[in-house]
Amino acid sequence: MTGRWAIIAPERANRPYELEEETLACPFCEGMESQTPAEVYSIRRDGTPPNQPGWFVRVFPNKYPALRRDISFWDVRDELYRVASGFGVHEVIVETPYHALDFSELPREQVVRVLTAYRERLCFFEREKDLQYGLIFKNQGIEAGASMRHAHSQFIATPFIPQVILEELEGAMNFYRKRKECPFCTLLTKELEKAVRLVVENDHFVAFVPYAARFPFEVMLLPTHHAASFQEETHFEDLAFVLGQVLRGVRECSGMSSFNFVLHTAPYHITNEVEKSYHWHFEILPAFLRAAGFEWGSGFSINVMRPEEAAQRLRLCLGLGGR
Amino acid sequence: MTGRWAIIAPERANRPYELEEETLACPFCEGMESQTPAEVYSIRRDGTPPNQPGWFVRVFPNKYPALRRDISFWDVRDELYRVASGFGVHEVIVETPYHALDFSELPREQVVRVLTAYRERLCFFEREKDLQYGLIFKNQGIEAGASMRHAHSQFIATPFIPQVILEELEGAMNFYRKRKECPFCTLLTKELEKAVRLVVENDHFVAFVPYAARFPFEVMLLPTHHAASFQEETHFEDLAFVLGQVLRGVRECSGMSSFNFVLHTAPYHITNEVEKSYHWHFEILPAFLRAAGFEWGSGFSINVMRPEEAAQRLRLCLGLGGR
Repeated sequence: MTGRWAIIAPERANRPYELEEETLACPFCEGMESQTPAEVYSIRRDGTPPNQPGWFVRVFPNKYPALRRDISFWDVRDELYRVASGFGVHEVIVETPYHALDFSELPREQVVRVLTAYRERLCFFEREKDLQYGLIFKNQGIEAGASMRHAHSQFIATPFIPQVILEELEGAMNFYRKRKECPFCTLLTKELEKAVRLVVENDHFVAFVPYAARFPFEVMLLPTHHAASFQEETHFEDLAFVLGQVLRGVRECSGMSSFNFVLHTAPYHITNEVEKSYHWHFEILPAFLRAAGFEWGSGFSINVMRPEEAAQRLRLCLGLGGR
Repeated sequence: MTGRWAIIAPERANRPYELEEETLACPFCEGMESQTPAEVYSIRRDGTPPNQPGWFVRVFPNKYPALRRDISFWDVRDELYRVASGFGVHEVIVETPYHALDFSELPREQVVRVLTAYRERLCFFEREKDLQYGLIFKNQGIEAGASMRHAHSQFIATPFIPQVILEELEGAMNFYRKRKECPFCTLLTKELEKAVRLVVENDHFVAFVPYAARFPFEVMLLPTHHAASFQEETHFEDLAFVLGQVLRGVRECSGMSSFNFVLHTAPYHITNEVEKSYHWHFEILPAFLRAAGFEWGSGFSINVMRPEEAAQRLRLCLGLGGR
């Protein structure tokens, strides 16, 4: 009735919760490559063979996948229900060989490698006919839903366009049809002009607290040039700088290291209109508020901090001065 | 762009977190009436005056409201943003005078009183012209977003129909237009027939695990007779029995006492078509999973337990036998 999908994945109930216990050996560490599924992509020192030490970033299928590539895609519906096979992709992107580093502590060249891995995995599945969408996201800390401490992101590709993205696409398209402009381009021009919610910017990127932020220190990060898909992006040095600043700010201002970020990018097979009206971006969400009954029941959120106040605090703690 | 609303309520940052500290005196306890705003409704022993001991259920305005009645309603939009005043209602419904009881331990006649209070508060604001929706919900336990331990629910009335409800209304209306039937009536006939996801039923109510449950032990509870609004409901004895059973089952099966429930009822001012296509219900959500990056970014959820398995476990632990 609502168009909402639930992925039923009983196998995931068996995955280890490394964060809850002291473990001797982390399978995401350098030297432990035999403990994970075989890698499908890596950025590594010249001459080092796959599944051996020597990597900077390493990608392999999730051992406890929400969706799987080794089954075929099917989709059936009756008057009330719709069901599809659990076809899709679920990969782990290990962001550093070192166990103790968190994403916001990575040197800029390492963040560039992680961003490159994001782009490569998104591109790799672009032409697979039954896949409609590729989603990159990161859960850091148990409060953010992570089950492993070692810094990693995840990639999930789905045979449907996620509802959250569909709603954005529709909103953007409606705006575009009326005004012949990308709403995100309009938005960032306005935010740069007013500057009251700005966090950090450079030549190619800008990060600000959204006008209707759902949480304290929620941040939106987007390119100042129009681009529907992350796959088109090349300014990774600049992006790594802005993303790093935002994550450092969020960590310090929220007083905790847990957060989520999600890359919102255009679906795989798009029309000219989506190309013109959508604009890829990151959503960064500190994980210190849980959804309660009101949020579940309404879709409204209650934010106890004015977005302008959050932006001011983030700027101050990054040494950028208030506005 | 997405139609999503955020309520900005900095005052709520100051509310006390009773659950995090040992407090000597709980303002929700009998005898502490002077510590709360004046009551707006209560069910109490004959002859006891308001704001004094002698009550069974007591309702008063939230001291740290998300929305307030003492300001006027206004609503402005430009090309990108929409903003409204924080007009609305936010009340606390204390479910028992006793500090140590939780909702699933309340005797049936007490649950009937709580349900009566829900109906009365919903009815009270029905004719206020700037209010479109009344939402009843409960957060029990800190994992579920509660800030006070003493058993209570909340009532929030809003000048807009919440997006979650709008989506349900639209889905229900589409179904009704095609088939001239309420989709919820069709759904419950099917679920009663198949019985694989049934949890508990009696003459007037049925509770089952939804086909696309988002969490283990998520339960939907609805009347077997068609009714768009909770305000029409009179079979509170039967409802109290089924709700009590479900909450006991969820507590035992999930191994924890935290949960949320949300009453989904029709908006205040409805058309004949909504009357015929919508069907009030409770959504009960155990709070042991947090939304992580994937859920935020997609709207998909990942459920590690098959709905049929969850229903079977709930039935077994309630002594109702498997199916």
